[in-house]
Amino acid sequence: MNVADIMSTPVVTIRNAATIANAVSLMRQKGIHALIVERSHPADAYGILTASDIVAKVVAFGRDPERVRVFEVMTKPCIVLNPDLGIEYAARLLSTYGLHCAPVIQTELLGILSLSDILERGDFLSSPLETELADQIQQLTAQAQAVCQAEGSDSPACAIAWTKVDALQAEMAHQRQEKLSKTAFETYREAYPEAIADEEYDAWCGG
Amino acid sequence: MNVADIMSTPVVTIRNAATIANAVSLMRQKGIHALIVERSHPADAYGILTASDIVAKVVAFGRDPERVRVFEVMTKPCIVLNPDLGIEYAARLLSTYGLHCAPVIQTELLGILSLSDILERGDFLSSPLETELADQIQQLTAQAQAVCQAEGSDSPACAIAWTKVDALQAEMAHQRQEKLSKTAFETYREAYPEAIADEEYDAWCGG
Amino acid sequence: MNVADIMSTPVVTIRNAATIANAVSLMRQKGIHALIVERSHPADAYGILTASDIVAKVVAFGRDPERVRVFEVMTKPCIVLNPDLGIEYAARLLSTYGLHCAPVIQTELLGILSLSDILERGDFLSSPLETELADQIQQLTAQAQAVCQAEGSDSPACAIAWTKVDALQAEMAHQRQEKLSKTAFETYREAYPEAIADEEYDAWCGG
Amino acid sequence: MNVADIMSTPVVTIRNAATIANAVSLMRQKGIHALIVERSHPADAYGILTASDIVAKVVAFGRDPERVRVFEVMTKPCIVLNPDLGIEYAARLLSTYGLHCAPVIQTELLGILSLSDILERGDFLSSPLETELADQIQQLTAQAQAVCQAEGSDSPACAIAWTKVDALQAEMAHQRQEKLSKTAFETYREAYPEAIADEEYDAWCGG
Amino acid sequence: MNVADIMSTPVVTIRNAATIANAVSLMRQKGIHALIVERSHPADAYGILTASDIVAKVVAFGRDPERVRVFEVMTKPCIVLNPDLGIEYAARLLSTYGLHCAPVIQTELLGILSLSDILERGDFLSSPLETELADQIQQLTAQAQAVCQAEGSDSPACAIAWTKVDALQAEMAHQRQEKLSKTAFETYREAYPEAIADEEYDAWCGG
Amino acid sequence: MNVADIMSTPVVTIRNAATIANAVSLMRQKGIHALIVERSHPADAYGILTASDIVAKVVAFGRDPERVRVFEVMTKPCIVLNPDLGIEYAARLLSTYGLHCAPVIQTELLGILSLSDILERGDFLSSPLETELADQIQQLTAQAQAVCQAEGSDSPACAIAWTKVDALQAEMAHQRQEKLSKTAFETYREAYPEAIADEEYDAWCGG
Repeated sequence: MNVADIMSTPVVTIRNAATIANAVSLMRQKGIHALIVERSHPADAYGILTASDIVAKVVAFGRDPERVRVFEVMTKPCIVLNPDLGIEYAARLLSTYGLHCAPVIQTELLGILSLSDILERGDFLSSPLETELADQIQQLTAQAQAVCQAEGSDSPACAIAWTKVDALQAEMAHQRQEKLSKTAFETYREAYPEAIADEEYDAWCGG
Repeated sequence: MNVADIMSTPVVTIRNAATIANAVSLMRQKGIHALIVERSHPADAYGILTASDIVAKVVAFGRDPERVRVFEVMTKPCIVLNPDLGIEYAARLLSTYGLHCAPVIQTELLGILSLSDILERGDFLSSPLETELADQIQQLTAQAQAVCQAEGSDSPACAIAWTKVDALQAEMAHQRQEKLSKTAFETYREAYPEAIADEEYDAWCGG
Repeated sequence: MNVADIMSTPVVTIRNAATIANAVSLMRQKGIHALIVERSHPADAYGILTASDIVAKVVAFGRDPERVRVFEVMTKPCIVLNPDLGIEYAARLLSTYGLHCAPVIQTELLGILSLSDILERGDFLSSPLETELADQIQQLTAQAQAVCQAEGSDSPACAIAWTKVDALQAEMAHQRQEKLSKTAFETYREAYPEAIADEEYDAWCGG
Repeated sequence: MNVADIMSTPVVTIRNAATIANAVSLMRQKGIHALIVERSHPADAYGILTASDIVAKVVAFGRDPERVRVFEVMTKPCIVLNPDLGIEYAARLLSTYGLHCAPVIQTELLGILSLSDILERGDFLSSPLETELADQIQQLTAQAQAVCQAEGSDSPACAIAWTKVDALQAEMAHQRQEKLSKTAFETYREAYPEAIADEEYDAWCGG
Repeated sequence: MNVADIMSTPVVTIRNAATIANAVSLMRQKGIHALIVERSHPADAYGILTASDIVAKVVAFGRDPERVRVFEVMTKPCIVLNPDLGIEYAARLLSTYGLHCAPVIQTELLGILSLSDILERGDFLSSPLETELADQIQQLTAQAQAVCQAEGSDSPACAIAWTKVDALQAEMAHQRQEKLSKTAFETYREAYPEAIADEEYDAWCGG
Repeated sequence: MNVADIMSTPVVTIRNAATIANAVSLMRQKGIHALIVERSHPADAYGILTASDIVAKVVAFGRDPERVRVFEVMTKPCIVLNPDLGIEYAARLLSTYGLHCAPVIQTELLGILSLSDILERGDFLSSPLETELADQIQQLTAQAQAVCQAEGSDSPACAIAWTKVDALQAEMAHQRQEKLSKTAFETYREAYPEAIADEEYDAWCGG
């Protein structure tokens, strides 16, 4: 499941010169907690105005929302999400940078993804990423075994098939914050040292 | 307007040994984003489990919610709010410590206050604190003038009345992050230096 | 041992409009490093002024303490402690939020607790919490066994007794940042699946 | 000047399962301080491995770089930059989130932008953004005056022209962290209140 | 007044392999809140163990101090202070990095400086740095005027004298977080443009 | 390998009153990313101006570098490094406090050490600290065994030799963030309880 599957649409935007009183009225009327602030020139960045910004910078200082404008309070530039990104990666990006929501952009503004969207509509209960990765590793391992049997253990196709297993094993270890003592490809290469020349191996390992 | 006026009730609680899958189901069913974790012994503290905790510590690492328990993910002890606190002060406390919600407690657990509650139900549009404080300063100033006229400019009641104006002026300057070159009481004392003995003045100023 | 046992009393307070020079003199005279700033209206919050605030915001900028007032430097609102809280929980609250001290309040202002109070007067050398929790788990386990023998393994009292063991086991695992693969209650339920109806079990687990 | 004008290309990538010893050799050989870590499945995110990551997580703990892999040390997901973004906005995004570099992506991976690229190749000495914005405001103001003269002060085109001035004025005030007491459009509307119906005005102001 | 004038001596040290129970007993016996951890080899760094470390990493997790060792809890390497540094600069260094104390070292370990030392023994009440800098600027300005009169307004000695005024003016503006539109030296150079050749001026300004 | 072996020299300095435009020109001309800001009076501290400071505080706000001076942007006081410190300790100090470089000072200013210097010239690939510490522990253990055989297992020299092993074991455990259940010296003392009187042991353990 990726960002595009659970993001909120359509995005509600606001002018940078509008007052916070305008912004709060708009949020209350639409029942939302974040507005995107449009760009004002071609090299400009998107901004975002959230409930958190308003509470922290206006309410917390007792300021009159009629006398504070959006540009004083918004977060800009804001971190943006790609619609194809898996929701677990979006979750980690939001939490690493302490965000509650971010605009989803690909060439144009597509939606907003918030922690609430992830909690309410994410499929992490039924398909946690660790289970999905384990399944994919199993499939790629079976594929690698099949390729190696078909084309020979020292064929380039066989070697490449094992590097694909490596990449997912490493990703799974990354998710779990674990170490990986030996990868599938390293195990393969120990068994078939002559299958890949040293310089080729180095090129693969480096890049 | 204070915390008790806008907090969400009743509070939904969860056991510390429950799984995150339990917690997510409960949140989805009740349409809420925070659960309070009950205490397990008399000197124990309350914990809180929020959407943000679940996204940051379970979803972001691709973990299976059936295999993670509430106590691994909750924030404990949590900062608590007093029901009598003004919403602007609650707003500043939440934002200073980067929180999205906190339990409201006075002897017993009364409710939860979130940024959403403040945004949606707060009266900060119609009565911003800076306007309220300005009104109160005007009233207290008028009172001080009346007391001083009635009881004499060098009466203790008059002096005390000016210290009350001071306190609100200082609070207003605190809200606005401004300096205060001379307070009402200092102005009064310059005009009536013999009204208050030095040692009395020092006691007031110190304490 | 709880907060009330080791907090410092009486609390020394200061006016928000007093100068930092006043505050430093008062601290030096009383031999203390924190003052509580009184509230100025009913919905107001307590503030706190510490040695750390004065060093960081006055001395570090070479400012004249005669020309800076308490409200410019204090931390407000401040996080408050409940007098019944165990000192280990107070220690975690202070350290999580980077504080060196906090006022102790229950309806009224009772004292101040600082890291020094914990270091100097805490009983953590003779009774560390992990030892206390281990003892309590042992006692509650013995009680559960006795209750179950007396009232029957499928009695509600027996089931409830095991949930109490659960809560402390989870709390201990929380302190140690460990996982808990199976709880006492889960073990019990596997052995006596008919003792608790599914809906009852769900109610217990959720709340 | 935008990100695409000064970013470094081509990007050097590395496998997530490679060792840190591999990564350091590659960095030394290419004379660079950041590598992009390729994605391992379609919903995956890009990672980045910087000199800072290696110094902080490998050297600082005296670990053997042969026994640590890229996925243990990389930052993932990483914040990405749009090639069209102005360098001042890229500068603020990097500094807000404490980054020294970020990949530049639009559909595909185009380059890396680092603080060094900005310092060495940015045109901020000759054309600081505040000067550019001031020039653009002047131009848009002249355009608005011309449009209003040509089409009438109460024409929609005239009103729209003033909202464009607003947007840049607000952006300039945002850059300078200043307030804006009255915008160009507000001034215009006070002069020609009948030019725009209330509901239209609200729609503009809100969105 | 500098660090050496108010630091605490002698420093109490502890072995890195000692237990936290040992460390707490030593602190209680000596009435101190910080111990320096000695170096174990020539390229090693000093460590520091504070009350804050013990409360945050041992008490807050309920751990048994007999079973935790100093090296698990200490902060190492620690930031060190130079004995000649002014206390205001030491105050800013400590507060910028969130420290309560730091060892004072010059070739050998000389003392420890804590926030308490600054609060209790600092002379910032009677001689705030802003007053001292203002006095020094006045003196250096008088000196510059005297030198220029004696040796001629376009003498190198005169120019150098004005650069000294510059340096203190800039330092004062730095303390106050203010801008400086024109420096003493710039004013001088506008009046006597031929006094300093361009290349000489550039060398001064750059370095 | 220590800081002096890989630091960059000579240090390029700049006046605190110079403009950022001057500073950028100097950095571009010398091909460096950090300048040291000289002290302006005897109790003054060194400052540092980095590419990161300029990007974050000047470029990111679109400010004109001709109108911003070094003292507004520099970091001061800055953390300093000792030339004898091992590079792994310097790496940890820099990364703990989020720095990219720091001046190296012993009585006088000797050089600057940056993350780049560590990455490019450090010997951590060929001699990681964990390998070096393991070698040293082996040597010290052999020495301790030899001393104890020569001078007797209950000789003071033997006891002292084991405390040296302790210190390095603890340092290695510190680097690896591991616990140490029993040290060499504790093992020794259990075998030869009469070798060291209790009070002597306590003195050793405490200090």
